[in-house]
Amino acid sequence: MSQLEVEKDPIEALRGTFRRHASGVSVITLLDGEGKPVGFTATSMTSLGANPPLASFNVSRGSSSWAAIESAEYAAIHTLGEKNLELAQKMAADHTKRFVEADWYAGPYGLPIFGAATAVLIVKIREIHSVESNAVVIVDVVEGLLGETDPALLYYQRGYMSPGKHLS
Amino acid sequence: MSQLEVEKDPIEALRGTFRRHASGVSVITLLDGEGKPVGFTATSMTSLGANPPLASFNVSRGSSSWAAIESAEYAAIHTLGEKNLELAQKMAADHTKRFVEADWYAGPYGLPIFGAATAVLIVKIREIHSVESNAVVIVDVVEGLLGETDPALLYYQRGYMSPGKHLS
Repeated sequence: MSQLEVEKDPIEALRGTFRRHASGVSVITLLDGEGKPVGFTATSMTSLGANPPLASFNVSRGSSSWAAIESAEYAAIHTLGEKNLELAQKMAADHTKRFVEADWYAGPYGLPIFGAATAVLIVKIREIHSVESNAVVIVDVVEGLLGETDPALLYYQRGYMSPGKHLS
Repeated sequence: MSQLEVEKDPIEALRGTFRRHASGVSVITLLDGEGKPVGFTATSMTSLGANPPLASFNVSRGSSSWAAIESAEYAAIHTLGEKNLELAQKMAADHTKRFVEADWYAGPYGLPIFGAATAVLIVKIREIHSVESNAVVIVDVVEGLLGETDPALLYYQRGYMSPGKHLS
């Protein structure tokens, strides 16, 4: 009836389960207390409600962007397509090199905007819930910037992928 | 520099953005106050931390499973593969017909387990944060059940898909 094997270690259980799960890829940007751009690649961004429009994402409180998230009022959530592979990689690598290229501009509220993204949600940070060394960030959508509908970028099995065939 | 068009209506901005974003698909099950199985298909399930292992998912407080989520101590989070397309569809359709077939069994803590899933996290509900008519649910991973590594099921552009080619 079941081909499932018990994994009693919860850390190994989480690891094994998320190897079997795919995620969409976002880049979240904001300004730090000095007005400098900060940001990171996230695979946890998801919709929370349609009316009013809400989204959420998870972040490590040890991340280079954490101090900015705690103090900022607004953020920009970029959804990425296949063509944004290098942007996803860059925003997950050395945080001191994430804004050195001229591939972004200052958008609404001065937020750093990567114009090549498939879409950008301009959001207001509404609630932050710290959980152990992590946090859940809940945001209100203020407005959006909509671009090309390039196939969505996915993260799966420790690498980036494009969507495959429609099943339904 | 940017091919992005401004969408001032935040509801339309959210809609347009999530048309460009892909998600992994989960099925979350639990027991209601009478011990009956309830559950639903979710595209918001994501990791929150590795040590201790934590996950989160979002749910509408108007959903048929909401009362059970508020009162339950444990839940089962199933990750789905391509072969689980019908399970994803069934658990998103008429809630009175979700457990009529004999494709599940009572697992740890009596939780309803679909043995065909690619993996199952047995989780303890830790925090629930209500936001407007929705809620963010934060859970601790207790143990897991690991199955076949069937290609992960995706939800994208209002339909189910399989992963495509590796980009990196």
